[in-house]
Amino acid sequence: MFQAALEDAQDRIETALQSELSGIETTIGDAMRYTCQGGKRLRGFLALESARLHDVSQGTAMSAACAIEMVHAYSLVHDDLPCMDDDDLRRGRPTVHKKWDEATAVLTGDALLTYAFEVLLKADVNPSRQIDLLQALAKAAGPQGMVLGQALDIAAEAAKTPLGIDEITHLQRGKTGALISWSAMAGPRMAGDDTSALEGYADRLGLAFQICDDILDVEGNPEDMGKRLQKDGAANKATFVSLLGLDGAKSRARDLMQDAIDALESYGTEARNLKDAARFVIDRKT
Amino acid sequence: MFQAALEDAQDRIETALQSELSGIETTIGDAMRYTCQGGKRLRGFLALESARLHDVSQGTAMSAACAIEMVHAYSLVHDDLPCMDDDDLRRGRPTVHKKWDEATAVLTGDALLTYAFEVLLKADVNPSRQIDLLQALAKAAGPQGMVLGQALDIAAEAAKTPLGIDEITHLQRGKTGALISWSAMAGPRMAGDDTSALEGYADRLGLAFQICDDILDVEGNPEDMGKRLQKDGAANKATFVSLLGLDGAKSRARDLMQDAIDALESYGTEARNLKDAARFVIDRKT
Repeated sequence: MFQAALEDAQDRIETALQSELSGIETTIGDAMRYTCQGGKRLRGFLALESARLHDVSQGTAMSAACAIEMVHAYSLVHDDLPCMDDDDLRRGRPTVHKKWDEATAVLTGDALLTYAFEVLLKADVNPSRQIDLLQALAKAAGPQGMVLGQALDIAAEAAKTPLGIDEITHLQRGKTGALISWSAMAGPRMAGDDTSALEGYADRLGLAFQICDDILDVEGNPEDMGKRLQKDGAANKATFVSLLGLDGAKSRARDLMQDAIDALESYGTEARNLKDAARFVIDRKT
Repeated sequence: MFQAALEDAQDRIETALQSELSGIETTIGDAMRYTCQGGKRLRGFLALESARLHDVSQGTAMSAACAIEMVHAYSLVHDDLPCMDDDDLRRGRPTVHKKWDEATAVLTGDALLTYAFEVLLKADVNPSRQIDLLQALAKAAGPQGMVLGQALDIAAEAAKTPLGIDEITHLQRGKTGALISWSAMAGPRMAGDDTSALEGYADRLGLAFQICDDILDVEGNPEDMGKRLQKDGAANKATFVSLLGLDGAKSRARDLMQDAIDALESYGTEARNLKDAARFVIDRKT
């Protein structure tokens, strides 16, 4: 049931993304379309499901889903650059700077970020709510959200002082949590409804997601994951696994999953897919 | 008179930019503030002046001025990267990747672009007009505007086939023209007025600006300019100067300046500063 809903959403998001990007010329257009193929589409799925819970049409919600997937894709393209994480493989395929070159990767990321705003600005939403949604996206993606997390990550690596659990949590709330939270809150934001239940859900889901990423970095299969693993250990970086141990991290992720599910209580069975998404996040192998 | 107005605008823009950026943590915040120091502020000045012509308050217009200066600054930081133009000097100071490192430069550009939207979203404008303004900014900065121009530039360099005058004009309309046009049209857009006179002005001004950049690349003083010059000749790139000759390029720039001024006829003497800005653009030595 959940798997079918996720796969259906993945297909619809893929089609919508490629359609949005179809008119863009030059190599940058090719690289944008390449970058927006595949992936779990967790963020897009959260946007679509939270919209459904708040009676926002799927057509309108798709603008939010496409926008957040483009912002996510941009962050990966820049993160993979040689001066950042220096990764050759992403989703099992060459990264943009390997398939083309670094200049193309820089511009492709820039273009995806800018185009995400363009796509979201076309959404058929009441202008005041649209501005609220855009403000939240700029905040989530910018130097007080995702870029802050990335900057703290780089600073920690340079300082060679391993972070503690509170610092890692703060860093990850920015680096991965901010976009996940935006996605899950997109529905009530577009409807002009209260966002607090989904905010509580998303905050826990984002942390659980990151803890599982750290677990998969240790236990995952690089072929299934389609990317290089065990980078954190090699870089001697503090992670939830290095701080809590493997069992401690797994137990923390399970607790967070349960808290995330509990936060959705007021939605009842309507929130089934979002509850299953929380289970999916901690059970995933990729 | 014009010089005083420009300097006054520069001071006010500088103050507003540094105030907007004051709360941003980490090295990225430092690099954002560093990047937003100095410069001619032509784009910000155009936004403030076009707003004045359309009775938009200077406080509201300042959000547009700050946003466009941040987008411009982001494009410079990424353009200066080793994988792009590989420049060590900008406005007479080390570029971000020289003063810090490449990862910081990538993230600083990303942060400035995202924060530009955040700043513009705070502008006190009617929501529908604000959305119009944001759409125009995303289009001007994105893969069908500035990034398109940059991509065409890179493609031309890789192809080793010098471009013709129409292709160069198309490329420059994207690379430098799109942001200049957005700036000059910000006033009527915020007011909900007709943009066509300022559109005609800005299109010619943008081209004149680029032709003069090509002239300064040949004739300018690197110390006055605060950056490396004669890169185009060294790279054997087609420019307005290589295509039209130095005298031909100067004459074309003068014609465009006059056309830009003529486009403002309906505003009468109220548009004095914008007319003088067109003269400034072709007389400038930096």
